[in-house]
Amino acid sequence: MLYVTRREVFSASHRLFNKQLSDAENEEIFDKCSNPHGHGHNYVLEVIVSGEINPKTGYVIDLKKLKRIVRENVIKKVDHKHLNYDTGFLKNIIPTAENIAVGIWNELYDKITEGRLFSVKLYETENNYVEYRGE
Amino acid sequence: MLYVTRREVFSASHRLFNKQLSDAENEEIFDKCSNPHGHGHNYVLEVIVSGEINPKTGYVIDLKKLKRIVRENVIKKVDHKHLNYDTGFLKNIIPTAENIAVGIWNELYDKITEGRLFSVKLYETENNYVEYRGE
Amino acid sequence: MLYVTRREVFSASHRLFNKQLSDAENEEIFDKCSNPHGHGHNYVLEVIVSGEINPKTGYVIDLKKLKRIVRENVIKKVDHKHLNYDTGFLKNIIPTAENIAVGIWNELYDKITEGRLFSVKLYETENNYVEYRGE
Amino acid sequence: MLYVTRREVFSASHRLFNKQLSDAENEEIFDKCSNPHGHGHNYVLEVIVSGEINPKTGYVIDLKKLKRIVRENVIKKVDHKHLNYDTGFLKNIIPTAENIAVGIWNELYDKITEGRLFSVKLYETENNYVEYRGE
Amino acid sequence: MLYVTRREVFSASHRLFNKQLSDAENEEIFDKCSNPHGHGHNYVLEVIVSGEINPKTGYVIDLKKLKRIVRENVIKKVDHKHLNYDTGFLKNIIPTAENIAVGIWNELYDKITEGRLFSVKLYETENNYVEYRGE
Amino acid sequence: MLYVTRREVFSASHRLFNKQLSDAENEEIFDKCSNPHGHGHNYVLEVIVSGEINPKTGYVIDLKKLKRIVRENVIKKVDHKHLNYDTGFLKNIIPTAENIAVGIWNELYDKITEGRLFSVKLYETENNYVEYRGE
Repeated sequence: MLYVTRREVFSASHRLFNKQLSDAENEEIFDKCSNPHGHGHNYVLEVIVSGEINPKTGYVIDLKKLKRIVRENVIKKVDHKHLNYDTGFLKNIIPTAENIAVGIWNELYDKITEGRLFSVKLYETENNYVEYRGE
Repeated sequence: MLYVTRREVFSASHRLFNKQLSDAENEEIFDKCSNPHGHGHNYVLEVIVSGEINPKTGYVIDLKKLKRIVRENVIKKVDHKHLNYDTGFLKNIIPTAENIAVGIWNELYDKITEGRLFSVKLYETENNYVEYRGE
Repeated sequence: MLYVTRREVFSASHRLFNKQLSDAENEEIFDKCSNPHGHGHNYVLEVIVSGEINPKTGYVIDLKKLKRIVRENVIKKVDHKHLNYDTGFLKNIIPTAENIAVGIWNELYDKITEGRLFSVKLYETENNYVEYRGE
Repeated sequence: MLYVTRREVFSASHRLFNKQLSDAENEEIFDKCSNPHGHGHNYVLEVIVSGEINPKTGYVIDLKKLKRIVRENVIKKVDHKHLNYDTGFLKNIIPTAENIAVGIWNELYDKITEGRLFSVKLYETENNYVEYRGE
Repeated sequence: MLYVTRREVFSASHRLFNKQLSDAENEEIFDKCSNPHGHGHNYVLEVIVSGEINPKTGYVIDLKKLKRIVRENVIKKVDHKHLNYDTGFLKNIIPTAENIAVGIWNELYDKITEGRLFSVKLYETENNYVEYRGE
Repeated sequence: MLYVTRREVFSASHRLFNKQLSDAENEEIFDKCSNPHGHGHNYVLEVIVSGEINPKTGYVIDLKKLKRIVRENVIKKVDHKHLNYDTGFLKNIIPTAENIAVGIWNELYDKITEGRLFSVKLYETENNYVEYRGE
């Protein structure tokens, strides 16, 4: 079994805000991440697929194909978007890196037809990143 | 003469939009960068100061001091902000990387008291960056 | 379950030397890493915490809080220090990357109060790094 | 138990081509990667060894020794080579990143005499990489 | 005046060989870079354009447009190619990084219609790069 | 004319301390950089040579040769050393990045026999670097 990874980058805005809490509670929890006009990141996404090598191609999954799946099902929904307003699969969800990673996992899971989705890693900054393995 | 550089990172939103043009013209020029809710980046800023070495310290300018000047005069005005709405020195300016770099130059120029400001480099993504040298 | 990572950098000196061995044995084992005056690195530290998402915040652990825990309990003890002389938790330990990683794990383990410490990764150079998972 | 990693870089050419298929089938599967004259990459290789710390040295395995093992058994066979023609351990194998990683694992496995080989990671580009753990 | 940069990556093979010299002379000069089957790199290209800001757009040149110019005039001629055989503008030229950079300058110079081409930087590896400014 | 760059990395300790000042003055100026036991960095050095392309080789200077010159004249004097005690060309000099860069320029200047030394860039951390061009 091998693990193959495709890396993509997208630029998006977000605001961390829990609608069920008061403004004061939101500011206490989220501080400057709760700025009303939002702020943004160049998110780096790594999608990791596990599987066996197909002897005909030498691939687990053709990375050109994985790239298309990721761009079609994730990147076009998040790149140059405000994640709180423009991205259907994040509606009514606090768009922390953790929740975005879980959302991306759900968008991709049944689209991977060779091998299986093993992990979604999401870098919010060069110092902060999260990983979700469907566990 | 030497050139000394301090690198800082900030996370911000922006929307490219020229108020003097129609929505159709804005979309034609700025395309997805003109998305009404904005999008964002982890901007990487490099501030380069030129000058001679002070023999007492071995420094052109103490980089700890340069870091404080950059954070006080730039970073706290742009980090976790929406550049179109929250940043005074960018009011009524289309916040392209070019215009942000010129704005940062103007915020910093007379705050550098040892050596002189030589260049402002601003990376918007890993593939796009601009430089302004006050020319 | 998710994995969240905070990255920090610190600059330190060390000397690889086993006091229970002769100078000749030390030089044979550690070679230039045993230079008496020491040498140094910009160490890159990644602290990985695993846990479930708190629905109130969308966080496993607030990365601003994790940053404070890592800086308070590790970075202030190792940054701009000589690890053989200045760092209590490395006293009488050969400060290889392996031993430093285990020491950092021990300093952090019971300070992580949301989620649990999963891994400590330590990059000594761009070509050499180690990981400890408490196994 | 710890995991220690040595990173090496090599520059090589390859052509993706399955001799048992027609030219048309090869072009359909491999597209521009099947260009007859080949193309190339700066491959980044990470070799990860797991094991316990030797109390005499503080090492799992001396990374200077691991570097020599990797250079002797892998790098000198692949660096500045065409992988389809010049590299014995890849003869008659489609040199995808997956197959190269498995080949490197096999070249290294019994050469690691302290600790045991845990993983081979191979970056073909900054956006595509694979990992093999002997599973 | 500002300087704006677009970065692109391409994967190519090359062989350093001067047809006017003997095989022995070639091997003495180019050593392993003269391996008959060639070797390859992930070349990183930076194209830098200088000019004044257009007040209507805030751009020196729209980086989306610069990206198209670079891809159309350079990347499609060199990516996934063998530079000695497949790239017209390098025919009968020893494809050192220096000569490739000059060739790319010549392909691009009169295609840049806003601002003017200021510099072509070409990274052959993470340790070796060249720059040409048309001087 | 072209500019060709060779990048090297070295790991060293230093202490910022001016012998002609009191301990209190040193601490005020250099703060934690004046810690008596020193601290260290993975310094990244870029040596840039300018010159014309030699038509016989396609090189300004063979980068393999430049690598040997830099390693022989600089790296072996600073790598795995304490710059205050072990490095002859820095004796009695406060080893700031600025002074180290000037020292490296002086060690290299007349050793470059093809093209001429154009610039020495020295990264002390990922956020701080200096450049000296002999001006």
